[in-house]
Amino acid sequence: MHFSSKLLEQAVDEFGRLPGVGKKTALRLVLHLLNQPVTDVNRFTAALNDLKAHIKYCKTCFNISDLEICEICAATKRDHQLICVVEDTRDVMAIENTNQYQGVYHVLGGLISPMDGIGPSDLKIEALVERMKANNISEVILALSATMEGDTTIFYLYRKLKEFNIQISTIARGIAFGGELEYVDEITLGRSIATRVPYERHVG
Amino acid sequence: MHFSSKLLEQAVDEFGRLPGVGKKTALRLVLHLLNQPVTDVNRFTAALNDLKAHIKYCKTCFNISDLEICEICAATKRDHQLICVVEDTRDVMAIENTNQYQGVYHVLGGLISPMDGIGPSDLKIEALVERMKANNISEVILALSATMEGDTTIFYLYRKLKEFNIQISTIARGIAFGGELEYVDEITLGRSIATRVPYERHVG
Repeated sequence: MHFSSKLLEQAVDEFGRLPGVGKKTALRLVLHLLNQPVTDVNRFTAALNDLKAHIKYCKTCFNISDLEICEICAATKRDHQLICVVEDTRDVMAIENTNQYQGVYHVLGGLISPMDGIGPSDLKIEALVERMKANNISEVILALSATMEGDTTIFYLYRKLKEFNIQISTIARGIAFGGELEYVDEITLGRSIATRVPYERHVG
Repeated sequence: MHFSSKLLEQAVDEFGRLPGVGKKTALRLVLHLLNQPVTDVNRFTAALNDLKAHIKYCKTCFNISDLEICEICAATKRDHQLICVVEDTRDVMAIENTNQYQGVYHVLGGLISPMDGIGPSDLKIEALVERMKANNISEVILALSATMEGDTTIFYLYRKLKEFNIQISTIARGIAFGGELEYVDEITLGRSIATRVPYERHVG
């Protein structure tokens, strides 16, 4: 791509660095911003700079928060003996949206991934162990992705947490609600037959 | 979507205002930026602020440029009697990429679109007429989109330019190279039969 302006090229390069944004999309977004009033562009960039400069993480669960202790950790109504371990703040939002969960969270900030150079010490795992020691926890739910990295992290956490004599569980895996059998991949289908549940639990 | 932080919500809102970027994509992009070093985020926002603050448009053709007169308009090798009228800088880039065009451009900055409140006076049409008067132009190519807005603009420009006793042409419409007949829409196919070309011109 040949640009008629260095300034334009720089802006397109920066947008193109974002995940899933190619050069053509980057150009479209930059030209859109260029057509907006200068106040809009300044508000856009100020929101990003403010976020980066002033973002806080909850001191208990490490979720993104504007306060020292996030709303969820501060809520007295919630079950503080039940901790759900997740990868990042998007997972907290997804689980909160279900309205099914009344416990608290622990945000790891990633998954163990040797390929990407992310080891256990890069995640909030030590902080989770400390949290287990300091509080009376009854159950830890490991709600991590069903990927290689997720399984590796689950295995590592299980070994770290089993000394605490608590229930450690993972979220259920199987075919999705509404999923048609013929389109389910073989591993999921095979595993969901092997881990079949009695009908009484199915309807419960 | 319930956000655990106002700062996060603001940044996601700003990203979500971009065309084609939904809330989920916006959140993914914002969390990506949040994980980058602060210098990278500052470079991203600085590139956008710089672009908006210092962008220039060529005084002759109104293409985006870092100079008063853009590279194309300043090139002595090009045919300055031949003007290609386009909607925006992306079209200039697309045509330049073909390496088929040796004339100069005129960037309208949009198309006439009453639905969006864009009239002829919002575009660089008067400047084009002035350019016709001041220079010895032999041909104007109207390379605009084959949409309602493009056709409206072509019609308006034709009426404005016909007094100048020059050749006014539009780019050829028809089935694309590599296009299979059965997938071509009816209007395009019907028109490309009506505007069929002698075989001698086809191979030329």
